[in-house]
Amino acid sequence: MRAIVLEDQALYQDSRPDPAPKPGEVVVRVLQAGVCETDLQLIKGYMGFRGVLGHEFVGVAESGPLEGQRVVGEINCACHTCDTCRAGLQTHCPNRTVLGILNHDGAFADRIAVPQMNLHAVPDTISTDVAVFTEPVAAAYQIQAQLSIARSDRIVVLGDGRLGNLCAQVLAGRSDHVMVVGKHPEKLALLQARGIATALVTEAIGERMADIVVECTGSETGLPTALRLVRPRGTIVLKTTVAGTQTLPWAPFVIDEVTLVGSRCGPFDRALEGLAQGQVDVRPLISDRFDLSQGLAALQRAQVRPVLKVLLDVARQ
Amino acid sequence: MRAIVLEDQALYQDSRPDPAPKPGEVVVRVLQAGVCETDLQLIKGYMGFRGVLGHEFVGVAESGPLEGQRVVGEINCACHTCDTCRAGLQTHCPNRTVLGILNHDGAFADRIAVPQMNLHAVPDTISTDVAVFTEPVAAAYQIQAQLSIARSDRIVVLGDGRLGNLCAQVLAGRSDHVMVVGKHPEKLALLQARGIATALVTEAIGERMADIVVECTGSETGLPTALRLVRPRGTIVLKTTVAGTQTLPWAPFVIDEVTLVGSRCGPFDRALEGLAQGQVDVRPLISDRFDLSQGLAALQRAQVRPVLKVLLDVARQ
Repeated sequence: MRAIVLEDQALYQDSRPDPAPKPGEVVVRVLQAGVCETDLQLIKGYMGFRGVLGHEFVGVAESGPLEGQRVVGEINCACHTCDTCRAGLQTHCPNRTVLGILNHDGAFADRIAVPQMNLHAVPDTISTDVAVFTEPVAAAYQIQAQLSIARSDRIVVLGDGRLGNLCAQVLAGRSDHVMVVGKHPEKLALLQARGIATALVTEAIGERMADIVVECTGSETGLPTALRLVRPRGTIVLKTTVAGTQTLPWAPFVIDEVTLVGSRCGPFDRALEGLAQGQVDVRPLISDRFDLSQGLAALQRAQVRPVLKVLLDVARQ
Repeated sequence: MRAIVLEDQALYQDSRPDPAPKPGEVVVRVLQAGVCETDLQLIKGYMGFRGVLGHEFVGVAESGPLEGQRVVGEINCACHTCDTCRAGLQTHCPNRTVLGILNHDGAFADRIAVPQMNLHAVPDTISTDVAVFTEPVAAAYQIQAQLSIARSDRIVVLGDGRLGNLCAQVLAGRSDHVMVVGKHPEKLALLQARGIATALVTEAIGERMADIVVECTGSETGLPTALRLVRPRGTIVLKTTVAGTQTLPWAPFVIDEVTLVGSRCGPFDRALEGLAQGQVDVRPLISDRFDLSQGLAALQRAQVRPVLKVLLDVARQ
């Protein structure tokens, strides 16, 4: 099968045997995959990953209870037996592999092996182009799974990229006061078209006013800006990280009793529901699409800004 | 009156006129005051404070509804009219002064002016030596005011100093699994005597096991240690800060979905209740005591480790 493989920060188009499913795993024939910021970080050496890249995908299950159906897959493959799993924290299983990220071949390939338990059927009402966004949309829904959010809460989302856009759309379903602060007028325009308030980072924004600030910039300036905007006893949600270390003054966290919440993968069922109901519109985020045979070009394209989502078309249903 | 005054990082014993109370303020004749880590930080230039030092005190109200009674005083003097105050966040009032810390003369003096609303009567069952700890004990009670804590929660308190000791004693009233990790066997022994588990920092401690880690070291090593000990989706409570900046990897907050909660001043009524009921025993923490006339020596003494609490005896009741 075709596969985009990363080894020692070298990326190449490979021809590999089909994956051999382990017990509990199902082989999924990939229809479409999406390129994520994490893929670009992995290429730069993050996690030291070696193998087939890709963790956002839609495919068709080739066996198991969902055989023949379109599916999406949760990326954390837990052991389901350790203390962490038994405490209900499967996404934090210390023994986990992660599709296309950690010790598990990913979805930039004709086929991928996925634990049966990780699969979710995609309703017919959701097109493949839309369903491929399930993983990042689930990450956006994780915020409201972690925090109690009131309609009156003033929420600032920092960053107008893929994740900032999705977080803002999801949070706009919970609060009447969501504002996205970004650098790119054309990306902010997509949010305005959904009725979401926006501002450029260069504009004056009310300091110490936000009940919740969601940091989606992946930039070193994000957290200092979040600390400037959040109100005393407010909450900063950290969705993206900066590679390596970051230097910050600490006193403001204590003096203003700010809460910082790290937030990662989220609920696929809720994401599929949000996509089916049109609460989140992902189609304007598609910047470009490539055939899997042009996978290397797709990953190059995803690194040329401005860009939102680059898709890899792998097969027709 | 006598007063210990800080100006441009110079500390001196001064003779000053009695304080002139502003509207809503009451003059309190100070009986006893305590030296806090914040005082030592202020002497080093923190906050650029100029004026009479001291914010932990017991005194006798000289007027108002509590006239003639022993009182302790909350340190944040709020405007009670701004949006922050009306939202119930008086301790975060942007217009506030803070006794002995920010634009308000403190308690290392014969008299201090305190807003009447900030005063709490000290029950007769609480001695002055004990009541002088109300402010730091209230800071310890703030943790359970911010977090919901279960009896089964595994809590690690980092730091065996004054605040670590008080936080551990308070939290031991909520959880059956409190452990203090510190550097000083003689300080840890005080906690053991209260039935609280302890460990030296050099000992192997279960990593990624704690539901809650309370950082009370005031050291740059505290937060990295806390990140090592906290479980995925666990909580780090930041009670003390490191002056200036701190350099940290941020990815663990997101990957492990850790919550960080800044925690500052707490409820005086709850602290007085805890002291009256003997839930917190503060007397073993008294390292030394000086007359206010020897105030400079007291502040010197508080900087010589190991030390817990240094008291300033100002007057007899």
